[in-house]
Amino acid sequence: MKTVDLNSDMGEGFGPWTIGDGVDAAILPLISSANIATGFHAGDPNTMRRTVELARQHGVAIGAHPGFRDLVGFGRRHLNAPAIELVNDMLYQLGALREFARLNGLPLQHIKPHGALYMHLARDEEAARVFVQTLRQLDPNLLLFCMHGSAVWRVAQELQQAVVCEFYADRDYDNSGSIVFTRRVGALDAAQVAAKVLRACCEGVVRTVEGRDIPIAFDSVCIHSDTPGALALVQATRNSLEAADIAIAAPR
Amino acid sequence: MKTVDLNSDMGEGFGPWTIGDGVDAAILPLISSANIATGFHAGDPNTMRRTVELARQHGVAIGAHPGFRDLVGFGRRHLNAPAIELVNDMLYQLGALREFARLNGLPLQHIKPHGALYMHLARDEEAARVFVQTLRQLDPNLLLFCMHGSAVWRVAQELQQAVVCEFYADRDYDNSGSIVFTRRVGALDAAQVAAKVLRACCEGVVRTVEGRDIPIAFDSVCIHSDTPGALALVQATRNSLEAADIAIAAPR
Amino acid sequence: MKTVDLNSDMGEGFGPWTIGDGVDAAILPLISSANIATGFHAGDPNTMRRTVELARQHGVAIGAHPGFRDLVGFGRRHLNAPAIELVNDMLYQLGALREFARLNGLPLQHIKPHGALYMHLARDEEAARVFVQTLRQLDPNLLLFCMHGSAVWRVAQELQQAVVCEFYADRDYDNSGSIVFTRRVGALDAAQVAAKVLRACCEGVVRTVEGRDIPIAFDSVCIHSDTPGALALVQATRNSLEAADIAIAAPR
Amino acid sequence: MKTVDLNSDMGEGFGPWTIGDGVDAAILPLISSANIATGFHAGDPNTMRRTVELARQHGVAIGAHPGFRDLVGFGRRHLNAPAIELVNDMLYQLGALREFARLNGLPLQHIKPHGALYMHLARDEEAARVFVQTLRQLDPNLLLFCMHGSAVWRVAQELQQAVVCEFYADRDYDNSGSIVFTRRVGALDAAQVAAKVLRACCEGVVRTVEGRDIPIAFDSVCIHSDTPGALALVQATRNSLEAADIAIAAPR
Repeated sequence: MKTVDLNSDMGEGFGPWTIGDGVDAAILPLISSANIATGFHAGDPNTMRRTVELARQHGVAIGAHPGFRDLVGFGRRHLNAPAIELVNDMLYQLGALREFARLNGLPLQHIKPHGALYMHLARDEEAARVFVQTLRQLDPNLLLFCMHGSAVWRVAQELQQAVVCEFYADRDYDNSGSIVFTRRVGALDAAQVAAKVLRACCEGVVRTVEGRDIPIAFDSVCIHSDTPGALALVQATRNSLEAADIAIAAPR
Repeated sequence: MKTVDLNSDMGEGFGPWTIGDGVDAAILPLISSANIATGFHAGDPNTMRRTVELARQHGVAIGAHPGFRDLVGFGRRHLNAPAIELVNDMLYQLGALREFARLNGLPLQHIKPHGALYMHLARDEEAARVFVQTLRQLDPNLLLFCMHGSAVWRVAQELQQAVVCEFYADRDYDNSGSIVFTRRVGALDAAQVAAKVLRACCEGVVRTVEGRDIPIAFDSVCIHSDTPGALALVQATRNSLEAADIAIAAPR
Repeated sequence: MKTVDLNSDMGEGFGPWTIGDGVDAAILPLISSANIATGFHAGDPNTMRRTVELARQHGVAIGAHPGFRDLVGFGRRHLNAPAIELVNDMLYQLGALREFARLNGLPLQHIKPHGALYMHLARDEEAARVFVQTLRQLDPNLLLFCMHGSAVWRVAQELQQAVVCEFYADRDYDNSGSIVFTRRVGALDAAQVAAKVLRACCEGVVRTVEGRDIPIAFDSVCIHSDTPGALALVQATRNSLEAADIAIAAPR
Repeated sequence: MKTVDLNSDMGEGFGPWTIGDGVDAAILPLISSANIATGFHAGDPNTMRRTVELARQHGVAIGAHPGFRDLVGFGRRHLNAPAIELVNDMLYQLGALREFARLNGLPLQHIKPHGALYMHLARDEEAARVFVQTLRQLDPNLLLFCMHGSAVWRVAQELQQAVVCEFYADRDYDNSGSIVFTRRVGALDAAQVAAKVLRACCEGVVRTVEGRDIPIAFDSVCIHSDTPGALALVQATRNSLEAADIAIAAPR
């Protein structure tokens, strides 16, 4: 692997509020793909516009990061809605961001559902199918960020929607290849995270919480901007990759 | 005048709720331009999609109908926000609708701000200027529905954004050419409304509440879908225009 | 049975929108307990105040009808949230209504969760327990409207929170005693509904969709105000009960 | 003056977001009155409950801090609504907080409208009158926090609603006694703020931006928790007052 994408969620404030360490402006120049919150779980029109402009200035590719309509829950709570309604919610948000991209003369590179919606599409085949079918009709070139092996990934393979598979630098994996959700105390160690990413890029494996090495297939490394100490993680990861002559670049 | 546009606000329900007589599906085939609510004062993604599909089926041109972010107030209450923030709110909503149009292979014909936002742009030159400048940059061909002589109309003339001027069939005018807001008891008389529109189209004048005839310049007749008895008003107006060999057609 | 409560959901509009046939003002004088929407799935402060005043004028007992925070989904979609957060959402809504009751010098008689939240508490023992424990601490006299045999009913029995069990006049039952959710075409027959209620009151049984008579235990008959033709159902039910010398009266 | 109240806005986060330096838990033990956000401009049920519990633990008096229904604008944008509707919005929020107070066995001490709503009531006599009349009917003992000489203060004097007048430690005054809104660069100097408060308490005067000393009448010192460096301001002010044998205590 000579190049890899580095993506992070951006613009996840709302009105007067910022999230995490509030370091979007510092992280953005270090990544290659920005997933921009589109208003349902976070993000407002002013923040979206500012974030798109910032991405343009730094040559960072942009994508929509739509979530469940659940501001107070930050899109992390599952909402039991019909597939078509969820897709309509995503279209609405996708279009909203696309307008700010248009104003800036930028294309949208990708779409990456957020939080519980991401997990829903990873598990619910019907919702995944309606979503991917709609993308095929709407914008076949829009890259779909997802997890290798998930329901939405399988449907995208079947329907030939281009995908970008993600490796989660700030999450732990178990032997099944699933993400382990742990309430962490304190910040992650930046050097360890960077080393984990580098190994995944060079050797294609990750050490699980049970202690085994499993293969991991991905095109993009995700570091969440609301992980405590996110800026340090991104910086260390970027430094480590560049030192190993791995370029950080958007998929396209 | 051999053709005139007939526009109405569509899709102004929200979730389980409908507005007015709930007769969108009956009115839509009778009009030539639909102003579709975009979620901030009314309208939700499912309703937007359904309304765009309905417009496509009937060959009705569509436009965005963005409002203040004030669902409970239906966008009828003035909200004191900086011009740039209001424009960002409109861009967000415009893009959301454009995505559903894209899915249906339709262009967006126009934008018509709603309620208190419409009035704000009619009066506030700064907001009008930021709005029109943004349209010039974003989409110079998007028709701006507005009132002849209003602030946003003047700025559009100056900056050469194409406009469509409206005549309000279901509102009264005073001698200054302004709309008179009256809390009406009971429904309007459909025959009277139709006659008023026909006269405006043929003679270019309207009788004011004070009893004088004043000239009125317009390209489109607006009948609000939430006016009680709206369907009858639209039907009578359409019949009356067609009987006089005036075609009802979208501006483009 | 010489008296029975008749309850209905009231105030389920939002801002400019009304629900169902918009006949709250006509139904309210005919019932004995009003479940007033409290803003999360429907209802706004103006509607709440108006509904409380109307209830006072007609001597109808009032209760809070809190729902999931999901306006666009009308509280009918399950939202996966921790029990304590759901209870806090209910407390917030309960207090909001209690303030309008206070302004009118009225006590709150009851609480009846709405839609998917009602079903959640009927099934999820943990949420039911946190909810009932909180009621015990907060307001032990507040009547809890629920379904006989449901999780929240069992916990209320155990913790000795007073309950009012409901019979759903406008829903079908199956042999297990559960409600059958059917998308109905057309309005219910008012005479049939009234006869069903009368039989339930006099004989304590209901005919299931499978055709068997099962026993049904209840203190209150519920007719949903957003069921098409709700007013006719309520009127017919009331007439039929009164003709049989069964008084309609609030539990207290 | 031997005692003075020290009040601050608390619980102004929303869902995952916190405001200012996120130091509510550190500030709260240092103040005597907490104005708790009630959900319309900030605050959610979980935060409200947690803040009320924290106030109880530290023996801090609590009050409702209702705002315009404008989350994205943090209640800082004027919304043009009829007086009665604004009052209903405040009642709704007041009741919501009162329920959490009830759960904690606490009384509500006061109400202090937030942001643009505070300013609206300071200027709009009609809204002020409807508001105070409603308080008289609802809860005559609820202390109304306001600015000496404002419209709502005058109406409260006339209708004999008990008030608590505020001195704004982190704002500048002009010769008219009005607050000067300046976009400040950098944090305030804690020692200067503490000295300003001490002088106001001891001498009853404040130095204006024009350089004159004007008399200032107040019962409570307000330090906004979202002012940068708020914790240091509160700490320094408290230390300075205590060193001068001025006790910090809630009005009741």
